[in-house]
Amino acid sequence: MDGYPFVHSEHVRFRDLDAMGHINNAVFATYIEQARVEYLASLNVLDRPVYDQGAESMILARLEIDFRAPGDAEPDMVDIGVRPASVGRKSFTLDYRLEQGGELLAEASTVLVSYDYERARSREVPDDWRNALERPGPVNA
Amino acid sequence: MDGYPFVHSEHVRFRDLDAMGHINNAVFATYIEQARVEYLASLNVLDRPVYDQGAESMILARLEIDFRAPGDAEPDMVDIGVRPASVGRKSFTLDYRLEQGGELLAEASTVLVSYDYERARSREVPDDWRNALERPGPVNA
Amino acid sequence: MDGYPFVHSEHVRFRDLDAMGHINNAVFATYIEQARVEYLASLNVLDRPVYDQGAESMILARLEIDFRAPGDAEPDMVDIGVRPASVGRKSFTLDYRLEQGGELLAEASTVLVSYDYERARSREVPDDWRNALERPGPVNA
Amino acid sequence: MDGYPFVHSEHVRFRDLDAMGHINNAVFATYIEQARVEYLASLNVLDRPVYDQGAESMILARLEIDFRAPGDAEPDMVDIGVRPASVGRKSFTLDYRLEQGGELLAEASTVLVSYDYERARSREVPDDWRNALERPGPVNA
Repeated sequence: MDGYPFVHSEHVRFRDLDAMGHINNAVFATYIEQARVEYLASLNVLDRPVYDQGAESMILARLEIDFRAPGDAEPDMVDIGVRPASVGRKSFTLDYRLEQGGELLAEASTVLVSYDYERARSREVPDDWRNALERPGPVNA
Repeated sequence: MDGYPFVHSEHVRFRDLDAMGHINNAVFATYIEQARVEYLASLNVLDRPVYDQGAESMILARLEIDFRAPGDAEPDMVDIGVRPASVGRKSFTLDYRLEQGGELLAEASTVLVSYDYERARSREVPDDWRNALERPGPVNA
Repeated sequence: MDGYPFVHSEHVRFRDLDAMGHINNAVFATYIEQARVEYLASLNVLDRPVYDQGAESMILARLEIDFRAPGDAEPDMVDIGVRPASVGRKSFTLDYRLEQGGELLAEASTVLVSYDYERARSREVPDDWRNALERPGPVNA
Repeated sequence: MDGYPFVHSEHVRFRDLDAMGHINNAVFATYIEQARVEYLASLNVLDRPVYDQGAESMILARLEIDFRAPGDAEPDMVDIGVRPASVGRKSFTLDYRLEQGGELLAEASTVLVSYDYERARSREVPDDWRNALERPGPVNA
Protein backbone atom coordinates (compact mmCIF):
# COMPACT_ATOMS: atom_id res chain seq x y z
CA MET A 1 0.00 0.00 0.00
CA ASP A 2 2.86 2.34 -0.85
CA GLY A 3 1.55 5.83 -1.37
CA TYR A 4 -1.69 5.09 0.45
CA PRO A 5 -1.40 6.67 3.89
CA PHE A 6 -4.97 5.75 4.78
CA VAL A 7 -6.04 2.10 4.67
CA HIS A 8 -9.42 0.78 5.72
CA SER A 9 -9.98 -2.96 6.07
CA GLU A 10 -13.33 -4.58 5.49
CA HIS A 11 -14.36 -8.09 6.44
CA VAL A 12 -15.55 -10.19 3.49
CA ARG A 13 -19.03 -11.47 4.17
CA PHE A 14 -20.56 -14.56 2.63
CA ARG A 15 -23.25 -12.18 1.32
CA ASP A 16 -20.52 -10.30 -0.61
CA LEU A 17 -19.94 -13.32 -2.84
CA ASP A 18 -21.82 -13.92 -6.05
CA ALA A 19 -22.93 -17.14 -7.72
CA MET A 20 -19.38 -17.71 -8.96
CA GLY A 21 -18.00 -17.50 -5.43
CA HIS A 22 -16.29 -14.20 -6.18
CA ILE A 23 -16.73 -10.86 -4.47
CA ASN A 24 -19.41 -9.22 -6.59
CA ASN A 25 -18.40 -6.11 -8.55
CA ALA A 26 -21.05 -3.97 -6.84
CA VAL A 27 -19.52 -4.93 -3.48
CA PHE A 28 -16.26 -3.38 -4.65
CA ALA A 29 -18.25 -0.13 -4.89
CA THR A 30 -19.45 -0.72 -1.32
CA TYR A 31 -15.91 -1.37 -0.03
CA ILE A 32 -14.76 1.80 -1.81
CA GLU A 33 -17.65 3.77 -0.34
CA GLN A 34 -16.91 2.50 3.15
CA ALA A 35 -13.23 3.39 2.85
CA ARG A 36 -14.24 6.84 1.57
CA VAL A 37 -16.59 7.41 4.52
CA GLU A 38 -13.84 6.39 6.95
CA TYR A 39 -11.21 8.46 5.16
CA LEU A 40 -13.35 11.59 5.07
CA ALA A 41 -14.22 11.15 8.75
CA SER A 42 -10.49 10.90 9.49
CA LEU A 43 -9.91 14.37 8.02
CA ASN A 44 -11.75 15.87 10.98
CA VAL A 45 -13.26 18.71 9.00
CA LEU A 46 -16.85 17.51 8.98
CA ASP A 47 -18.95 18.24 12.02
CA ARG A 48 -21.35 15.42 11.15
CA PRO A 49 -21.39 12.20 9.09
CA VAL A 50 -20.58 12.71 5.41
CA TYR A 51 -24.01 11.45 4.44
CA ASP A 52 -25.87 14.10 6.38
CA GLN A 53 -27.15 16.52 3.83
CA GLY A 54 -26.77 20.25 4.42
CA ALA A 55 -24.70 23.22 3.44
CA GLU A 56 -21.47 21.24 3.59
CA SER A 57 -22.03 18.08 1.62
CA MET A 58 -20.56 16.28 -1.32
CA ILE A 59 -21.96 14.25 -4.16
CA LEU A 60 -20.41 11.25 -5.85
CA ALA A 61 -20.14 12.31 -9.48
CA ARG A 62 -18.00 9.57 -10.96
CA LEU A 63 -16.79 6.12 -10.08
CA GLU A 64 -14.32 4.06 -12.04
CA ILE A 65 -12.98 0.66 -11.09
CA ASP A 66 -10.35 -1.42 -12.85
CA PHE A 67 -10.71 -5.01 -11.73
CA ARG A 68 -7.33 -6.75 -11.61
CA ALA A 69 -8.17 -10.08 -9.96
CA PRO A 70 -11.28 -11.78 -8.63
CA GLY A 71 -11.79 -11.49 -4.88
CA ASP A 72 -12.62 -14.58 -2.88
CA ALA A 73 -13.94 -15.55 0.54
CA GLU A 74 -10.39 -16.07 1.78
CA PRO A 75 -8.35 -14.36 3.10
CA ASP A 76 -11.32 -12.76 4.80
CA MET A 77 -10.17 -9.13 4.84
CA VAL A 78 -9.99 -6.68 1.96
CA ASP A 79 -7.73 -3.69 2.48
CA ILE A 80 -8.73 -0.47 0.75
CA GLY A 81 -6.14 2.28 0.48
CA VAL A 82 -7.42 5.82 -0.11
CA ARG A 83 -5.51 8.91 -1.15
CA PRO A 84 -6.41 12.30 -2.56
CA ALA A 85 -5.36 12.53 -6.19
CA SER A 86 -6.29 16.13 -6.97
CA VAL A 87 -8.36 18.99 -5.61
CA GLY A 88 -10.16 21.27 -8.04
CA ARG A 89 -12.25 24.37 -7.45
CA LYS A 90 -15.57 22.56 -6.87
CA SER A 91 -14.55 18.92 -6.83
CA PHE A 92 -11.81 16.55 -5.80
CA THR A 93 -10.63 13.13 -6.82
CA LEU A 94 -9.77 10.22 -4.55
CA ASP A 95 -7.81 7.18 -5.67
CA TYR A 96 -8.20 3.71 -4.18
CA ARG A 97 -6.26 0.48 -4.17
CA LEU A 98 -7.94 -2.76 -3.09
CA GLU A 99 -5.86 -5.69 -1.92
CA GLN A 100 -6.71 -9.07 -0.48
CA GLY A 101 -3.92 -10.90 1.31
CA GLY A 102 -1.41 -8.59 -0.36
CA GLU A 103 -2.74 -9.32 -3.85
CA LEU A 104 -4.03 -6.44 -5.94
CA LEU A 105 -7.77 -6.79 -6.54
CA ALA A 106 -8.64 -3.44 -8.09
CA GLU A 107 -7.67 0.16 -8.62
CA ALA A 108 -10.37 2.77 -8.48
CA SER A 109 -11.06 6.46 -8.55
CA THR A 110 -13.97 8.69 -7.57
CA VAL A 111 -14.81 12.31 -8.29
CA LEU A 112 -16.67 14.06 -5.49
CA VAL A 113 -18.39 17.38 -6.05
CA SER A 114 -18.76 19.86 -3.20
CA TYR A 115 -22.46 20.49 -2.88
CA ASP A 116 -24.85 22.63 -0.90
CA TYR A 117 -28.07 20.67 -0.51
CA GLU A 118 -29.87 23.60 1.09
CA ARG A 119 -29.30 25.72 -2.02
CA ALA A 120 -29.28 22.68 -4.33
CA ARG A 121 -26.12 23.63 -6.15
CA SER A 122 -22.43 22.89 -6.32
CA ARG A 123 -20.09 25.21 -4.46
CA GLU A 124 -16.38 25.67 -3.94
CA VAL A 125 -14.47 23.10 -1.95
CA PRO A 126 -14.26 24.65 1.54
CA ASP A 127 -10.78 25.76 2.58
CA ASP A 128 -10.59 23.40 5.52
CA TRP A 129 -11.44 20.45 3.28
CA ARG A 130 -8.85 21.60 0.75
CA ASN A 131 -6.23 21.96 3.46
CA ALA A 132 -7.01 18.55 4.91
CA LEU A 133 -6.96 16.89 1.49
CA GLU A 134 -3.67 18.53 0.57
CA ARG A 135 -2.03 17.86 3.94
CA PRO A 136 0.91 15.51 3.37
CA GLY A 137 1.82 12.43 5.29
CA PRO A 138 0.09 9.48 6.86
CA VAL A 139 -3.49 9.92 7.96
CA ASN A 140 -3.83 6.67 9.84
CA ALA A 141 -1.14 4.24 10.89
CA MET B 1 -33.46 5.83 -24.81
CA ASP B 2 -32.50 6.79 -28.35
CA GLY B 3 -29.67 4.61 -29.54
CA TYR B 4 -30.33 1.96 -26.90
CA PRO B 5 -32.14 -0.89 -28.64
CA PHE B 6 -32.07 -3.01 -25.48
CA VAL B 7 -33.67 -1.67 -22.30
CA HIS B 8 -34.04 -3.60 -19.06
CA SER B 9 -36.22 -2.21 -16.27
CA GLU B 10 -35.55 -2.90 -12.63
CA HIS B 11 -37.89 -2.30 -9.71
CA VAL B 12 -36.45 0.02 -7.06
CA ARG B 13 -36.47 -1.72 -3.71
CA PHE B 14 -36.54 0.00 -0.35
CA ARG B 15 -33.27 -1.88 0.31
CA ASP B 16 -31.72 -0.08 -2.68
CA LEU B 17 -31.95 3.24 -0.85
CA ASP B 18 -29.23 4.56 1.41
CA ALA B 19 -29.42 6.67 4.56
CA MET B 20 -30.04 9.77 2.44
CA GLY B 21 -33.04 8.16 0.77
CA HIS B 22 -31.20 7.91 -2.55
CA ILE B 23 -30.44 4.85 -4.62
CA ASN B 24 -27.00 3.87 -3.37
CA ASN B 25 -24.13 4.12 -5.85
CA ALA B 26 -23.29 0.41 -5.49
CA VAL B 27 -26.86 -0.40 -6.48
CA PHE B 28 -26.24 1.39 -9.77
CA ALA B 29 -23.55 -1.23 -10.35
CA THR B 30 -26.13 -3.91 -9.58
CA TYR B 31 -28.69 -2.42 -12.00
CA ILE B 32 -25.98 -2.25 -14.65
CA GLU B 33 -24.97 -5.84 -13.96
CA GLN B 34 -28.54 -7.04 -14.20
CA ALA B 35 -29.09 -5.22 -17.49
CA ARG B 36 -25.84 -6.72 -18.77
CA VAL B 37 -26.92 -10.25 -17.80
CA GLU B 38 -30.26 -9.76 -19.55
CA TYR B 39 -28.67 -8.18 -22.60
CA LEU B 40 -26.09 -10.93 -23.00
CA ALA B 41 -28.79 -13.58 -22.59
CA SER B 42 -30.80 -11.83 -25.33
CA LEU B 43 -27.93 -12.32 -27.79
CA ASN B 44 -28.67 -16.05 -27.81
CA VAL B 45 -25.06 -17.06 -28.25
CA LEU B 46 -24.47 -18.44 -24.79
CA ASP B 47 -25.60 -21.98 -24.12
CA ARG B 48 -25.74 -21.34 -20.37
CA PRO B 49 -25.99 -18.38 -17.97
CA VAL B 50 -23.22 -15.80 -18.38
CA TYR B 51 -22.01 -16.45 -14.87
CA ASP B 52 -21.33 -20.13 -15.47
CA GLN B 53 -17.60 -20.45 -15.74
CA GLY B 54 -16.09 -22.53 -18.49
CA ALA B 55 -14.38 -22.26 -21.81
CA GLU B 56 -16.73 -19.51 -22.99
CA SER B 57 -16.85 -16.94 -20.25
CA MET B 58 -16.17 -13.27 -19.74
CA ILE B 59 -14.70 -11.19 -16.97
CA LEU B 60 -15.66 -7.68 -15.95
CA ALA B 61 -12.43 -5.75 -16.33
CA ARG B 62 -13.59 -2.16 -15.95
CA LEU B 63 -16.64 -0.27 -14.76
CA GLU B 64 -17.18 3.45 -14.99
CA ILE B 65 -20.27 5.34 -13.93
CA ASP B 66 -21.03 9.02 -14.32
CA PHE B 67 -23.77 9.94 -11.89
CA ARG B 68 -26.03 12.66 -13.30
CA ALA B 69 -28.85 12.84 -10.76
CA PRO B 70 -29.72 11.07 -7.51
CA GLY B 71 -32.19 8.22 -7.85
CA ASP B 72 -35.16 8.05 -5.51
CA ALA B 73 -37.81 5.60 -4.37
CA GLU B 74 -40.27 7.04 -6.87
CA PRO B 75 -40.99 6.46 -9.70
CA ASP B 76 -40.34 2.88 -8.75
CA MET B 77 -38.71 1.64 -11.96
CA VAL B 78 -35.24 2.34 -13.27
CA ASP B 79 -34.72 1.76 -16.99
CA ILE B 80 -31.26 0.65 -18.07
CA GLY B 81 -30.39 0.88 -21.74
CA VAL B 82 -27.52 -1.27 -23.00
CA ARG B 83 -25.65 -1.11 -26.27
CA PRO B 84 -22.38 -2.47 -27.59
CA ALA B 85 -19.88 0.36 -28.03
CA SER B 86 -16.94 -1.49 -29.52
CA VAL B 87 -15.63 -5.01 -30.01
CA GLY B 88 -11.90 -5.62 -29.81
CA ARG B 89 -9.88 -8.76 -30.32
CA LYS B 90 -10.16 -10.09 -26.77
CA SER B 91 -12.62 -7.68 -25.17
CA PHE B 92 -15.68 -5.59 -25.83
CA THR B 93 -17.25 -2.50 -24.36
CA LEU B 94 -20.89 -2.01 -23.44
CA ASP B 95 -22.45 1.39 -22.79
CA TYR B 96 -25.38 1.98 -20.46
CA ARG B 97 -27.88 4.74 -19.83
CA LEU B 98 -29.94 4.75 -16.63
CA GLU B 99 -33.19 6.67 -16.46
CA GLN B 100 -35.88 6.99 -13.83
CA GLY B 101 -39.21 8.35 -15.02
CA GLY B 102 -37.53 9.65 -18.14
CA GLU B 103 -34.88 11.54 -16.18
CA LEU B 104 -31.24 10.69 -16.79
CA LEU B 105 -29.70 9.15 -13.67
CA ALA B 106 -26.34 7.96 -14.96
CA GLU B 107 -24.24 6.98 -17.93
CA ALA B 108 -21.93 4.03 -17.62
CA SER B 109 -19.56 1.79 -19.48
CA THR B 110 -18.03 -1.62 -18.89
CA VAL B 111 -15.16 -3.50 -20.48
CA LEU B 112 -15.63 -7.24 -20.62
CA VAL B 113 -12.75 -9.57 -21.41
CA SER B 114 -13.35 -12.87 -23.14
CA TYR B 115 -11.95 -15.49 -20.83
CA ASP B 116 -11.40 -19.22 -20.71
CA TYR B 117 -11.70 -20.29 -17.09
CA GLU B 118 -10.60 -23.83 -17.86
CA ARG B 119 -7.29 -22.59 -19.22
CA ALA B 120 -7.25 -19.51 -16.93
CA ARG B 121 -6.44 -17.04 -19.66
CA SER B 122 -8.03 -14.48 -21.92
CA ARG B 123 -8.92 -15.56 -25.41
CA GLU B 124 -10.34 -14.05 -28.59
CA VAL B 125 -13.95 -12.93 -28.62
CA PRO B 126 -15.75 -15.86 -30.29
CA ASP B 127 -17.10 -15.14 -33.76
CA ASP B 128 -20.72 -15.72 -32.80
CA TRP B 129 -20.40 -13.24 -29.93
CA ARG B 130 -18.77 -10.74 -32.26
CA ASN B 131 -21.50 -11.20 -34.84
CA ALA B 132 -24.24 -10.81 -32.24
CA LEU B 133 -22.62 -7.71 -30.73
CA GLU B 134 -22.15 -6.11 -34.15
CA ARG B 135 -25.61 -7.03 -35.40
CA PRO B 136 -27.51 -3.81 -36.04
CA GLY B 137 -31.03 -2.95 -35.01
CA PRO B 138 -33.27 -3.40 -32.03
CA VAL B 139 -32.64 -6.36 -29.75
CA ASN B 140 -35.74 -6.05 -27.65
CA ALA B 141 -38.74 -3.84 -28.22
CA MET C 1 -51.82 -17.77 -3.76
CA ASP C 2 -55.21 -18.73 -2.32
CA GLY C 3 -56.00 -16.54 0.63
CA TYR C 4 -53.48 -13.90 -0.40
CA PRO C 5 -55.44 -11.05 -1.96
CA PHE C 6 -52.31 -8.93 -2.32
CA VAL C 7 -49.38 -10.26 -4.33
CA HIS C 8 -46.23 -8.34 -5.12
CA SER C 9 -43.76 -9.72 -7.67
CA GLU C 10 -40.05 -9.04 -7.48
CA HIS C 11 -37.47 -9.64 -10.18
CA VAL C 12 -34.65 -11.95 -9.11
CA ARG C 13 -31.33 -10.21 -9.58
CA PHE C 14 -28.00 -11.93 -10.10
CA ARG C 15 -26.92 -10.02 -6.96
CA ASP C 16 -29.67 -11.84 -5.01
CA LEU C 17 -27.89 -15.16 -5.48
CA ASP C 18 -25.28 -16.46 -3.10
CA ALA C 19 -22.19 -18.58 -3.70
CA MET C 20 -24.38 -21.67 -4.03
CA GLY C 21 -26.43 -20.06 -6.79
CA HIS C 22 -29.47 -19.83 -4.52
CA ILE C 23 -31.42 -16.77 -3.49
CA ASN C 24 -29.72 -15.78 -0.25
CA ASN C 25 -31.79 -16.03 2.93
CA ALA C 26 -31.33 -12.32 3.72
CA VAL C 27 -32.79 -11.52 0.31
CA PHE C 28 -35.97 -13.31 1.37
CA ALA C 29 -36.19 -10.67 4.12
CA THR C 30 -35.78 -8.00 1.44
CA TYR C 31 -38.50 -9.51 -0.77
CA ILE C 32 -40.78 -9.67 2.28
CA GLU C 33 -39.96 -6.07 3.19
CA GLN C 34 -40.67 -4.88 -0.34
CA ALA C 35 -44.00 -6.71 -0.44
CA ARG C 36 -44.84 -5.20 2.96
CA VAL C 37 -44.03 -1.66 1.76
CA GLU C 38 -46.20 -2.17 -1.32
CA TYR C 39 -49.01 -3.75 0.67
CA LEU C 40 -49.07 -0.99 3.28
CA ALA C 41 -49.03 1.64 0.55
CA SER C 42 -52.00 -0.10 -1.06
CA LEU C 43 -54.06 0.39 2.10
CA ASN C 44 -54.18 4.12 1.37
CA VAL C 45 -54.12 5.14 5.01
CA LEU C 46 -50.62 6.54 5.14
CA ASP C 47 -50.10 10.08 3.90
CA ARG C 48 -46.40 9.41 3.27
CA PRO C 49 -44.05 6.46 2.69
CA VAL C 50 -44.10 3.89 5.49
CA TYR C 51 -40.46 4.54 6.21
CA ASP C 52 -40.96 8.22 6.97
CA GLN C 53 -40.73 8.52 10.70
CA GLY C 54 -43.25 10.60 12.56
CA ALA C 55 -46.31 10.34 14.71
CA GLU C 56 -47.78 7.57 12.55
CA SER C 57 -45.09 5.00 12.06
CA MET C 58 -44.51 1.35 12.68
CA ILE C 59 -41.57 -0.74 13.77
CA LEU C 60 -40.67 -4.23 12.67
CA ALA C 61 -40.62 -6.17 15.93
CA ARG C 62 -40.39 -9.75 14.72
CA LEU C 63 -39.62 -11.65 11.55
CA GLU C 64 -39.91 -15.36 11.04
CA ILE C 65 -39.28 -17.25 7.84
CA ASP C 66 -39.75 -20.94 7.14
CA PHE C 67 -37.72 -21.86 4.10
CA ARG C 68 -39.43 -24.58 2.05
CA ALA C 69 -37.29 -24.75 -1.08
CA PRO C 70 -34.19 -22.99 -2.38
CA GLY C 71 -34.85 -20.13 -4.78
CA ASP C 72 -32.95 -19.97 -8.03
CA ALA C 73 -32.17 -17.52 -10.81
CA GLU C 74 -34.97 -18.98 -12.91
CA PRO C 75 -37.87 -18.40 -13.25
CA ASP C 76 -36.85 -14.81 -12.73
CA MET C 77 -39.81 -13.57 -10.70
CA VAL C 78 -40.64 -14.28 -7.08
CA ASP C 79 -44.26 -13.69 -6.07
CA ILE C 80 -44.85 -12.58 -2.50
CA GLY C 81 -48.39 -12.81 -1.15
CA VAL C 82 -49.23 -10.64 1.87
CA ARG C 83 -52.23 -10.82 4.15
CA PRO C 84 -53.10 -9.48 7.58
CA ALA C 85 -53.20 -12.30 10.11
CA SER C 86 -54.30 -10.44 13.23
CA VAL C 87 -54.61 -6.91 14.59
CA GLY C 88 -53.90 -6.30 18.26
CA ARG C 89 -54.15 -3.16 20.34
CA LYS C 90 -50.67 -1.83 19.56
CA SER C 91 -49.41 -4.24 16.93
CA PHE C 92 -50.48 -6.34 13.99
CA THR C 93 -49.22 -9.43 12.23
CA LEU C 94 -48.81 -9.93 8.50
CA ASP C 95 -48.35 -13.32 6.87
CA TYR C 96 -46.46 -13.91 3.65
CA ARG C 97 -46.15 -16.67 1.09
CA LEU C 98 -43.26 -16.69 -1.37
CA GLU C 99 -43.52 -18.61 -4.61
CA GLN C 100 -41.29 -18.92 -7.64
CA GLY C 101 -42.89 -20.29 -10.77
CA GLY C 102 -45.77 -21.60 -8.68
CA GLU C 103 -43.47 -23.49 -6.31
CA LEU C 104 -43.58 -22.62 -2.63
CA LEU C 105 -40.27 -21.07 -1.52
CA ALA C 106 -41.12 -19.87 1.97
CA GLU C 107 -43.78 -18.92 4.45
CA ALA C 108 -43.17 -15.95 6.68
CA SER C 109 -44.69 -13.72 9.29
CA THR C 110 -43.90 -10.30 10.72
CA VAL C 111 -45.11 -8.42 13.78
CA LEU C 112 -45.30 -4.67 13.33
CA VAL C 113 -45.70 -2.36 16.30
CA SER C 114 -47.49 0.95 15.93
CA TYR C 115 -45.01 3.59 16.99
CA ASP C 116 -44.82 7.31 17.52
CA TYR C 117 -41.26 8.37 16.74
CA GLU C 118 -41.88 11.91 17.91
CA ARG C 119 -42.79 10.67 21.39
CA ALA C 120 -40.52 7.61 21.11
CA ARG C 121 -43.12 5.13 22.29
CA SER C 122 -45.55 2.58 21.01
CA ARG C 123 -49.16 3.64 20.61
CA GLU C 124 -52.49 2.12 19.64
CA VAL C 125 -53.00 1.00 16.08
CA PRO C 126 -54.90 3.93 14.50
CA ASP C 127 -58.53 3.21 13.62
CA ASP C 128 -58.06 3.79 9.90
CA TRP C 129 -55.17 1.29 9.84
CA ARG C 130 -57.26 -1.20 11.77
CA ASN C 131 -60.18 -0.74 9.42
CA ALA C 132 -57.97 -1.12 6.36
CA LEU C 133 -56.24 -4.21 7.76
CA GLU C 134 -59.55 -5.83 8.70
CA ARG C 135 -61.27 -4.92 5.43
CA PRO C 136 -62.14 -8.15 3.65
CA GLY C 137 -61.59 -9.03 0.04
CA PRO C 138 -58.94 -8.56 -2.60
CA VAL C 139 -56.61 -5.59 -2.27
CA ASN C 140 -54.99 -5.89 -5.65
CA ALA C 141 -55.93 -8.10 -8.55
CA MET D 1 -22.74 -11.87 26.06
CA ASP D 2 -23.22 -14.20 29.02
CA GLY D 3 -23.91 -17.69 27.78
CA TYR D 4 -22.53 -16.97 24.31
CA PRO D 5 -19.07 -18.53 24.17
CA PHE D 6 -18.67 -17.63 20.50
CA VAL D 7 -18.94 -13.98 19.45
CA HIS D 8 -18.34 -12.68 15.95
CA SER D 9 -18.08 -8.92 15.35
CA GLU D 10 -19.10 -7.31 12.11
CA HIS D 11 -18.30 -3.80 10.95
CA VAL D 12 -21.39 -1.71 10.17
CA ARG D 13 -21.20 -0.42 6.63
CA PHE D 14 -22.93 2.68 5.32
CA ARG D 15 -24.59 0.28 2.83
CA ASP D 16 -26.12 -1.60 5.79
CA LEU D 17 -28.26 1.41 6.67
CA ASP D 18 -31.69 2.01 5.23
CA ALA D 19 -33.50 5.23 4.35
CA MET D 20 -34.25 5.80 8.03
CA GLY D 21 -30.56 5.59 8.92
CA HIS D 22 -31.08 2.29 10.73
CA ILE D 23 -29.45 -1.05 10.06
CA ASN D 24 -31.90 -2.69 7.69
CA ASN D 25 -33.72 -5.78 8.96
CA ALA D 26 -32.37 -7.94 6.11
CA VAL D 27 -28.85 -6.97 7.17
CA PHE D 28 -29.56 -8.53 10.56
CA ALA D 29 -30.06 -11.78 8.63
CA THR D 30 -26.68 -11.18 6.97
CA TYR D 31 -24.94 -10.53 10.30
CA ILE D 32 -26.54 -13.70 11.68
CA GLU D 33 -25.46 -15.67 8.61
CA GLN D 34 -21.91 -14.40 8.87
CA ALA D 35 -21.71 -15.28 12.57
CA ARG D 36 -23.11 -18.72 11.74
CA VAL D 37 -20.51 -19.30 9.01
CA GLU D 38 -17.72 -18.28 11.40
CA TYR D 39 -19.14 -20.34 14.25
CA LEU D 40 -19.52 -23.47 12.14
CA ALA D 41 -15.99 -23.04 10.78
CA SER D 42 -14.74 -22.78 14.38
CA LEU D 43 -16.12 -26.24 15.16
CA ASN D 44 -13.43 -27.75 12.93
CA VAL D 45 -15.60 -30.60 11.72
CA LEU D 46 -16.11 -29.44 8.18
CA ASP D 47 -13.41 -30.17 5.66
CA ARG D 48 -14.57 -27.34 3.42
CA PRO D 49 -16.62 -24.12 3.65
CA VAL D 50 -20.16 -24.61 4.95
CA TYR D 51 -21.59 -23.37 1.70
CA ASP D 52 -19.92 -26.03 -0.41
CA GLN D 53 -22.62 -28.47 -1.33
CA GLY D 54 -21.98 -32.16 -1.04
CA ALA D 55 -22.67 -35.14 1.12
CA GLU D 56 -22.09 -33.15 4.32
CA SER D 57 -24.10 -30.00 4.03
CA MET D 58 -26.82 -28.18 5.87
CA ILE D 59 -29.83 -26.16 4.86
CA LEU D 60 -31.29 -23.15 6.61
CA ALA D 61 -34.84 -24.24 7.36
CA ARG D 62 -36.03 -21.49 9.69
CA LEU D 63 -34.99 -18.02 10.77
CA GLU D 64 -36.61 -15.96 13.47
CA ILE D 65 -35.49 -12.56 14.68
CA ASP D 66 -36.88 -10.49 17.52
CA PHE D 67 -35.83 -6.90 17.02
CA ARG D 68 -35.24 -5.15 20.34
CA ALA D 69 -33.74 -1.81 19.30
CA PRO D 70 -32.83 -0.13 16.02
CA GLY D 71 -29.18 -0.42 15.01
CA ASP D 72 -27.31 2.68 13.93
CA ALA D 73 -24.12 3.66 12.14
CA GLU D 74 -22.40 4.19 15.50
CA PRO D 75 -20.81 2.47 17.33
CA ASP D 76 -19.53 0.87 14.17
CA MET D 77 -19.34 -2.75 15.32
CA VAL D 78 -22.16 -5.21 15.89
CA ASP D 79 -21.35 -8.20 18.07
CA ILE D 80 -23.18 -11.41 17.30
CA GLY D 81 -23.10 -14.18 19.90
CA VAL D 82 -23.86 -17.70 18.71
CA ARG D 83 -24.64 -20.80 20.75
CA PRO D 84 -26.14 -24.19 20.03
CA ALA D 85 -29.59 -24.43 21.59
CA SER D 86 -30.49 -28.02 20.78
CA VAL D 87 -29.42 -30.88 18.54
CA GLY D 88 -32.08 -33.17 17.08
CA ARG D 89 -31.76 -36.25 14.95
CA LYS D 90 -31.64 -34.49 11.58
CA SER D 91 -31.46 -30.82 12.56
CA PHE D 92 -30.06 -28.46 15.15
CA THR D 93 -30.93 -25.03 16.45
CA LEU D 94 -28.56 -22.12 16.98
CA ASP D 95 -29.41 -19.07 19.08
CA TYR D 96 -28.00 -15.62 18.49
CA ARG D 97 -27.73 -12.38 20.41
CA LEU D 98 -26.90 -9.14 18.59
CA GLU D 99 -25.45 -6.20 20.49
CA GLN D 100 -24.15 -2.82 19.45
CA GLY D 101 -22.01 -1.00 21.99
CA GLY D 102 -23.32 -3.30 24.70
CA GLU D 103 -26.95 -2.57 23.84
CA LEU D 104 -29.20 -5.46 22.86
CA LEU D 105 -30.29 -5.10 19.21
CA ALA D 106 -31.95 -8.45 18.58
CA GLU D 107 -32.34 -12.06 19.61
CA ALA D 108 -32.54 -14.67 16.91
CA SER D 109 -32.71 -18.37 16.24
CA THR D 110 -32.13 -20.60 13.24
CA VAL D 111 -32.96 -24.21 12.49
CA LEU D 112 -30.43 -25.96 10.29
CA VAL D 113 -31.21 -29.30 8.66
CA SER D 114 -28.45 -31.76 7.94
CA TYR D 115 -28.64 -32.41 4.21
CA ASP D 116 -26.99 -34.54 1.58
CA TYR D 117 -27.03 -32.59 -1.66
CA GLU D 118 -25.70 -35.52 -3.65
CA ARG D 119 -28.69 -37.63 -2.66
CA ALA D 120 -30.99 -34.61 -2.33
CA ARG D 121 -32.38 -35.56 1.03
CA SER D 122 -32.02 -34.81 4.71
CA ARG D 123 -29.86 -37.11 6.76
CA GLU D 124 -28.84 -37.59 10.37
CA VAL D 125 -26.61 -35.00 12.00
CA PRO D 126 -23.13 -36.55 11.75
CA ASP D 127 -21.64 -37.66 15.05
CA ASP D 128 -18.68 -35.29 14.85
CA TRP D 129 -21.03 -32.34 14.32
CA ARG D 130 -23.17 -33.49 17.22
CA ASN D 131 -20.13 -33.85 19.44
CA ALA D 132 -18.81 -30.44 18.48
CA LEU D 133 -22.20 -28.77 18.98
CA GLU D 134 -22.67 -30.43 22.37
CA ARG D 135 -19.11 -29.76 23.54
CA PRO D 136 -19.28 -27.43 26.55
CA GLY D 137 -17.25 -24.33 27.18
CA PRO D 138 -15.92 -21.36 25.26
CA VAL D 139 -15.35 -21.79 21.54
CA ASN D 140 -13.54 -18.53 20.98
CA ALA D 141 -12.29 -16.01 23.53
